[in-house]
Formats: sequence, C-alpha cells, structure tokens
Amino acid sequence: MLRYCEVGYKVIGFDIDQNKVDLLKAGKSYIEHISSDSINTAINTGFQATTDFSRVNEADALILCVPTPLNKYREPDLSFVLDTTDSLVPYLREGQVVSLESTTYPGTTDEELLPRVQSGGLAVGQNIFLVFSPEREDPGNPNFTTRTIPKVCGGVTSACLEVGLALYGQVIDRVVPVSSTRAAELTKLLENIHRAVNIGLVNEMKIVADKMDIDIHEVIRAAATKPFGFVPYFPGPGLGGHCIPIDPFYLTWKAREYGVHTRFIELAGEVNSSMPDYVISKIASALNRIERAIKGSNVLVLGISYKKNVDDMRESPSVMLMEKLRDLGARVAYSDPHVPVFPKLREHKFDLSSVELTPETIATFDCVLLATDHDKFDFEMIKTHAKLIVDSRGRYLAPAAHIVKA
Amino acid sequence: MLRYCEVGYKVIGFDIDQNKVDLLKAGKSYIEHISSDSINTAINTGFQATTDFSRVNEADALILCVPTPLNKYREPDLSFVLDTTDSLVPYLREGQVVSLESTTYPGTTDEELLPRVQSGGLAVGQNIFLVFSPEREDPGNPNFTTRTIPKVCGGVTSACLEVGLALYGQVIDRVVPVSSTRAAELTKLLENIHRAVNIGLVNEMKIVADKMDIDIHEVIRAAATKPFGFVPYFPGPGLGGHCIPIDPFYLTWKAREYGVHTRFIELAGEVNSSMPDYVISKIASALNRIERAIKGSNVLVLGISYKKNVDDMRESPSVMLMEKLRDLGARVAYSDPHVPVFPKLREHKFDLSSVELTPETIATFDCVLLATDHDKFDFEMIKTHAKLIVDSRGRYLAPAAHIVKA
Repeated sequence: MLRYCEVGYKVIGFDIDQNKVDLLKAGKSYIEHISSDSINTAINTGFQATTDFSRVNEADALILCVPTPLNKYREPDLSFVLDTTDSLVPYLREGQVVSLESTTYPGTTDEELLPRVQSGGLAVGQNIFLVFSPEREDPGNPNFTTRTIPKVCGGVTSACLEVGLALYGQVIDRVVPVSSTRAAELTKLLENIHRAVNIGLVNEMKIVADKMDIDIHEVIRAAATKPFGFVPYFPGPGLGGHCIPIDPFYLTWKAREYGVHTRFIELAGEVNSSMPDYVISKIASALNRIERAIKGSNVLVLGISYKKNVDDMRESPSVMLMEKLRDLGARVAYSDPHVPVFPKLREHKFDLSSVELTPETIATFDCVLLATDHDKFDFEMIKTHAKLIVDSRGRYLAPAAHIVKA
Repeated sequence: MLRYCEVGYKVIGFDIDQNKVDLLKAGKSYIEHISSDSINTAINTGFQATTDFSRVNEADALILCVPTPLNKYREPDLSFVLDTTDSLVPYLREGQVVSLESTTYPGTTDEELLPRVQSGGLAVGQNIFLVFSPEREDPGNPNFTTRTIPKVCGGVTSACLEVGLALYGQVIDRVVPVSSTRAAELTKLLENIHRAVNIGLVNEMKIVADKMDIDIHEVIRAAATKPFGFVPYFPGPGLGGHCIPIDPFYLTWKAREYGVHTRFIELAGEVNSSMPDYVISKIASALNRIERAIKGSNVLVLGISYKKNVDDMRESPSVMLMEKLRDLGARVAYSDPHVPVFPKLREHKFDLSSVELTPETIATFDCVLLATDHDKFDFEMIKTHAKLIVDSRGRYLAPAAHIVKA
C-alpha cells in the first residue's frame, strides 16, 4: 500500500475492522515497524481507508492480503480469503486484476478463487485477470524494502500473468514470473517449510549435543565458517510468528488429497512444538540443583515477542512458556522493551506489565529465562545480577555456574 | 600435503597401499582434480611417499586423513583410524602433534585416540599434542583452495589447541578454534547433516510437487530469488559421495549411547535412499506409455559419477540405478566424459565403456536417463535425438512430450 502511494497511485484500503479503518483515517499506524508518519504521508497522496466494499469497483487492481491461519485441527482456515473474495465479487468489473497474496496451499487460486471471480459472468484471462503473488517480508531486517525484495507471480492464464507482472512491475524492482498460480503458491510454502525444517533440525541437534555436553551454538557458529554448502540456523524455545509454525501444514493438508505425506514438515512440527517443554525441563532441573521447585519460584521471562527486536506476539513461544510456568505454580513476570503491557490475545491472558530491568529487580527472581534476545537488553547487567539464568538463545557463550543452556 | 609443500615444508606421505605410493613416487596423481604436475612440483620440494611407518618419528606433525566408512549395519567403521593410530604409536616421540582429520562421531579423539597416543608413556598436552581438525573441501568448486577454506580445530587440552592452531596457521588463512575435540567433531557432522537433511527435504517436496503437477525445480528457483532466509538445494536421483550419505549416521550411532534419536537424519536417509527406486518407477511408467517394459529396453545412463564435473564414483546413485535396471532386464549402457571405462568397484561390476554421444548412438536407445548433469554434455543435441529422456536433475526446464521429470 505504502509503496503504491509512494509512486503516485491512489490507494484504497479495505478492512472489515472499523477500528483499524478509524486508526488509519486518523493517520495512526497499528504496526510497530510502520510509522504513523508514513500513514500520514500516504493520506496526503490520496490514501483512503474504508469498510465499504461497494467501492471495490473504483479500483483497477485488487490485492488480497488476509490471514490464512490453521483451525484447531491443524487444517487450513480459508474463511478470510473466501469471505473477502465473496465481498468483492458483487462489485467486480471488466478490466480489473485480482491478486491473492495470502500464503496458501497449491490450488487455492485455481480451485477456490477462479470459480468465484467468474461467477458474475466475467471471463478470467479475457476481461478480468487473476494472479497469485505471495507476500515476502522480513520485519526487523533493515536491508530490504518492499521495492527491493523480488516478488514471485503466477497467473491463471498467460494473459493474467502478463497483467500481474505489469501490476507489480510498477512498484517492485524485480518480479519473478512462474508458470502457474500453483507454482507461485508452492514457492511461498517451500520458503517457509525450508525454515521450519532447518529450525527443527537444529533444535533436535541441540538436544543431542546437550546430552554429549557440547554447546550447539558454538558448533553452529563454527560450521558457519564454511564458505559453501552450509547455512546457519539457530535453535530456540520454539517456533513463533504467523508464518513458520503454520504455513507448512497447508501443504501437509493438501498433500493428503494426493495420498502423499510430508514427513519432514510433520517431524519439524513435532520437534519445534516440543521445545517449550524442553525449556521447562531445563528450568526445573536448574532450580532443582538449588533445591527449589518451579512451584513457588519467581520466574522472569525476558522477551515475549516471537522474534528479536519486534513487538509481534503472534504464536510466541514465550507466551506458551509463561502459561506452562504459571500452570506449574511459578510466579511469572516478564520484561520486554517492545511490549510494555501484556496485550489482549484471543487465547492467552496475563494481567502484567513489563518489569523494568535493574540490578535490584533482577536479583529478586529465582530464575531468569532468556526467551527472546532483544538487542535492547543489557546482557552483561542481567548476567551480573541474576541468581540463575536459563538461556534458550545461546546468547551467553562463556560457561558460568549460574547460566544453564536450554 | 600440496599446501604444506607449497610453503616450503618437507612432507612425507604415508600409505599402506604400495600401489598409491609407487604412483606418487613416479610423479603420478591418482585423483582427477589433482594434476600430476602438482605432484611433481611437490617431489621437487622434497615430498616423499612411503609405506614405512618407522619414518613417523621424522615428522613434527602427523595428520591422519583416512576413510571412516559405515559397515553394512550402518555402524561406524573406525578400523582405518584405529589401525593407522596403532601403526604410529610405536614411533611417536616428544614434541609431535597428532591431528585427526577424518569425519567421525563426537568423542572419537578423546575416547579412542587419546588413550592410544598416551599408551607409550607420552603425556598429551605436555610433551605431545592431540587435536581434531576436520577436512573441508568441495571438489569441482573453483572458488576455494585449501588455503582459503577456513579450518576448524579443537584440542584435547588448551595447549593442544594452541599447537593445532600453530600447525594449521602456517598454511590456512583462517583457523577457527573451538573449545573441544568433540565440538570440532560435531561441527563437521553438522555441516554434512545439514546437507543430507536439506536434500532429503527437497526430494520429498519433489514427490509431493510431482503429484500436484508442479515442477519442483521451477519452484526452488523461484524461492531462491528470496534474498534472505532461503537457500536452494536441489533434488536428484539419490545421495552420493563419501560424505553426505555416510557421515550423518556416525552421529545417529553415537546418540544411541545417550538414549537420544536423530530423527531428521534417519528420515533424510530413508527419503534419499528411496530416490533411485522413485527414478526407476518414472522410467517404468514413461516406457509403459509407449507400450514397452524395462525388460528388453535399451537404456542409456548419462553421468555415472556422484556429482557433476568430477570423476568420483563413490556411493554414486547412478551405479545403483544401473544395477536396478540390469536386474529388471534392461540392456544398460552409460556415457560419462569423466569416466571412460567403468572402474573396478568393491561391490559393483559392469564390463562397460562410455558410449560416445552422437545423434546416431543416442537414437538407438529406448530411454536416456539423465543421472548426473555434467556440463560437458550437449543437452540440446541429446534432447533433439533421444526418443525418451527421464531427467532426474531438472536440467530440461521447458516441458516436452518426450521428456519426463523424475
């Protein structure tokens, strides 16, 4: 949206959430890494936010970026994609291009969007155009912008692809065409499957190395000095975010239709989702050494967003850890410079604010769990004043009696 | 060896194979990517080859680079390492450094070499020094030499590590110290486990994509345009070479001692070792479409070394494919510019020479299997004249009626 505004397009933002629309209209951003300034700049170039879908016919291009979560049986929940499409359909007109950007299984555009878009009598590839072009972003990475991240695009027909390339070529330096919407859909999934599996692998390696009294972080750093054939991934307390823990299972689900299994995805899911329990067992045994139980201990969780230097709490393993600790009877507190107050989440509730880190506050906790290693933390100070640190990020390289690697 | 000669050291090469020693003495290389010229240059600077282990006491540094295969139960076969060590022990003296470079499980240096080296009364860390420093090489990669590939080193004691760093610092630009021989041993394993698992993943993805009628090579190439967080690995007809199919199971074996499982390694092994059968099934169904069986068909296998542009046949999946085809009754031939005559291998026997590729010879085969895509092949010519191509390397991007992706 911001990028289209930047090059001079008039952009309309549709949302069903009146609250978000009101914030945008007031020039306020609700995402940490997007400034309110940039929203105001967009408004000055004509950006409008609305909940009124009848305005769909004003647009030449319709870009859908809605969530594609899993339901509680780990099945794709396409309701946002399908409901949004159904909201557009009455207002579609000749000459428009519809692009789906939400991560989804191969076949979604062909099997779900195509019949809906054509339902009003328009002919895809002739007087309306349909493409799939996955979002690619890396929040917190300062080296890339929307413009400089190459964007993959596949069309339902070759005419659709051409229109899609023209659409994105206006704002993106390099648009990468693929031969079908299915190939584009699988491309995005493969990117995230690659991450989920590589993180699963190093998480398993962490467990093996720990048994052998080897620091996996030291090993990964040493392996990373190999100038070819190796890329470092690092273990952690579990997978977070709205992509890596979720997207791979879209393929798992679709593969069943073809009678094939995605065993690497399932193994990665199993290993990665077991990591919070592994961390808890490390906390328990660390406390046990000083004759304490988790129950009744004061535990401080450092970092509750799912990755460092951002405020995004989606699927954060820290929250799972806080819940497990609370269920086991610990008195749980947290500190996170990016999350001053524990937010309202659909499935998790904590009535907490971020603890200010001082030598005095740190010393009051029986155990400090390093869950997300934000650069804003003063790691030396924490190390000096904590009684016991359980480090799930390999941040503390040098061994110390009061630091346990988890 | 060549690198130590290059900087002016006098190097003695020990081998139990008189044949190799004789070749080296005659200035002849027995490895394709090392020229006989470079052996002669080394001889002129004092290089000697010998089978006489009593000369061990002449050397200040002893570097062990012997094979570490698996036995037929997929267990580590350390016999070469241990026999070599036992051959050295009678001739060890004060002031020497012993470095093991063979890939092996964490603990080998500590548990197996240390007691042997000390058995003659020498004290490791005091008057003799013991390190583990894994070999790192990428045959066929022109961008790196022994000097420019960083080398990891771990010592039994910190004095050992210092001596090891001094030893390799003479010839290698960057030596990377780690805190123990175990960490160094695991570093090398992790590098190869990373490859085995990533190749296993794309092999599984290939099967899934094929069912969905998506070309996995197109998808991987598109994903590789992502400038962060994704690294392309490509599927193939199976894993080859003396590292990737073997090394990971050294960790699997050792992990059992600690009661932990290496499930990613085992899954990768299972998927990768099933690939030759997958390719065979693709050949069978491609031939079936033209009402032919494998039995009685003339099949030409292109490329029989385990990777492109080299002559190394170790663990080559092409050989496995040739055997399977022969067992199924095909008349098998091969063409490989790097392997003019099928060599004598311990477990495989083919009385064949490389077929010269011409329009006429290619046209005589019912099926051409692209197994290893050497750059020396004329792929356009092959495409033009072959009746049927089964492409296990994704070399042919554009779909064609007579090309089947496997």
